[in-house]
Amino acid sequence: MRIAIDAMGGDYAPKEIVAGAIAAAKEHGDIQILLVGHEEQIKANLAEALPGNVSIVHAAEVIESEDEPVRAVRRKKDSSMVVAGRLVKDKQADAMLSAGNTGALMTTGLLIVGRIPGIERPALAPLLPSLDGTGMLALDLGANMDATPEQLLQYAVMGSIYRERVQGMKAPRIALLNVGTEEMKGNEATKAAYELLKGSGLNFIGNVESKHVLERPCDVLVCDGFSGNIMLKSYEGAASVIFNEVKKAFKLNILTKLAAAIMLPHLKGLKKTLDPNEFGGAPLLGINGLVLKIHGSSDARAVQAAVKQAKTAVSGKLIESITAEINKE
Amino acid sequence: MRIAIDAMGGDYAPKEIVAGAIAAAKEHGDIQILLVGHEEQIKANLAEALPGNVSIVHAAEVIESEDEPVRAVRRKKDSSMVVAGRLVKDKQADAMLSAGNTGALMTTGLLIVGRIPGIERPALAPLLPSLDGTGMLALDLGANMDATPEQLLQYAVMGSIYRERVQGMKAPRIALLNVGTEEMKGNEATKAAYELLKGSGLNFIGNVESKHVLERPCDVLVCDGFSGNIMLKSYEGAASVIFNEVKKAFKLNILTKLAAAIMLPHLKGLKKTLDPNEFGGAPLLGINGLVLKIHGSSDARAVQAAVKQAKTAVSGKLIESITAEINKE
Repeated sequence: MRIAIDAMGGDYAPKEIVAGAIAAAKEHGDIQILLVGHEEQIKANLAEALPGNVSIVHAAEVIESEDEPVRAVRRKKDSSMVVAGRLVKDKQADAMLSAGNTGALMTTGLLIVGRIPGIERPALAPLLPSLDGTGMLALDLGANMDATPEQLLQYAVMGSIYRERVQGMKAPRIALLNVGTEEMKGNEATKAAYELLKGSGLNFIGNVESKHVLERPCDVLVCDGFSGNIMLKSYEGAASVIFNEVKKAFKLNILTKLAAAIMLPHLKGLKKTLDPNEFGGAPLLGINGLVLKIHGSSDARAVQAAVKQAKTAVSGKLIESITAEINKE
Repeated sequence: MRIAIDAMGGDYAPKEIVAGAIAAAKEHGDIQILLVGHEEQIKANLAEALPGNVSIVHAAEVIESEDEPVRAVRRKKDSSMVVAGRLVKDKQADAMLSAGNTGALMTTGLLIVGRIPGIERPALAPLLPSLDGTGMLALDLGANMDATPEQLLQYAVMGSIYRERVQGMKAPRIALLNVGTEEMKGNEATKAAYELLKGSGLNFIGNVESKHVLERPCDVLVCDGFSGNIMLKSYEGAASVIFNEVKKAFKLNILTKLAAAIMLPHLKGLKKTLDPNEFGGAPLLGINGLVLKIHGSSDARAVQAAVKQAKTAVSGKLIESITAEINKE
């Protein structure tokens, strides 16, 4: 199994990415890692000799976080991200992962690697935080803004397979993000998607309201990219404002500072539990090869964990399973 | 000026509604209040004699909170809510307010009172909490799930006029709820609405992301009822989970209990600031007469405040201004 890693994307690239790749290579002697990026820069950031199962694939360019995604992918043909995508496309690699520009990575998936035949739209599928710390898969979280009922159904199928194949879950509970729990609730798209999901053979448990997502009411939450983004950023905004205000209140006077000293160790855990970045890589499902987005601030540890996640997905035949299921009839 | 009050809707009806109506009648000697509901029950809940500017309009039925809205409005023709709506329709009242079933009140607005000619869809327009305590008008928050770009533009026009006429704001800043601030962001509906808003003559300041709403980035936030609901309930869910977990952490041991004693007075204010129910009545804009939804848990004080809000809207010629603006060309 070969996994391509974009060595140049992310806040701490190439240093942390390279370190994570080496750690992963040592952990998994049975996989080959292709470190894609500027050879000189990668070598300058080596803290130790490359293990035998890591090789460097030179790419002269880098897609920056502020680059316009489609343009960057079209023009920077020799960028680390595009070259890694081409390795997957040409079956030189089974998977790729990147901490770089999210939009560019989705474009690389779509334009360089390509869709699974039968899939209308790929979907970005991160694990969202849940209070119990286990996380809940949600898709689409930003690959496409609009989704038809049929596309929502495809998201559900892909999410269900991912939970089964990569996370070992049996009959994952699928739900639809909606404004109420009753069947007739929602906009035109969710109402029609509800009907399709009911007849899909998936373990569809109905609608879920956005206020309950932290309680992990389901294993796969299906939504269009627009409302998924509104939900995610609302949670982000609320948590940031509340934690900020609590922090300010802790600084009011000597007594509140005492209270802070007592409480901060207990509240740190909560903040971490609610942090969406603590939950590993997000697969771009529906692409004909595994493309894994990891957070921009990923360190070596995060890269190492993502390699493990990619390995599980490839061994679990994720892409083959999705392809078979989508083209079943 | 005559204001009809649904005496039977809400958690504390009729007692608190009646008390609020009487207090409002005393505060505003220049208005007439029509207390609509079961005469005997209203009389049984009178703590004092009715002031001269309050009269009871008998209605034998009540729409309950668990009633299916459209059915209830169609069948319970003699319910306090429907009778109040008919008073507005027949120009026997200039405004109505109710703490009852929200769906039924929207239906009453639509089917009994009727739309302003030229308005495609009415919109529910509550003030959302903001950190500075002043609130931000958002619409639509639930009257319609889907909205076309043209309907979003109408929401913007109505919200702008409401802010000017009822809240004395000059050139209210209008923004579109979206997934990013750049012009080309969003789904098909928001992208097209952006263009319409840009050319509208309104003080349109662009897109706003859901994570910033508590900072009051604009005075009128325009969204479809579906994504507005997703946003609102996400904030609700995040706040409820975080406050709950903090409360649990305060109960861990004797030291954290001490910290709680110090901090709770400071955190109470924050919780109140973020509570959407603290922000008065939500008008159902686009209806041909003022229909004001007040929270189900409204007490006398909330009813009294809502009467003042209704009075300001009627004196400010809200409905006439919307009608003129929508039918301008």
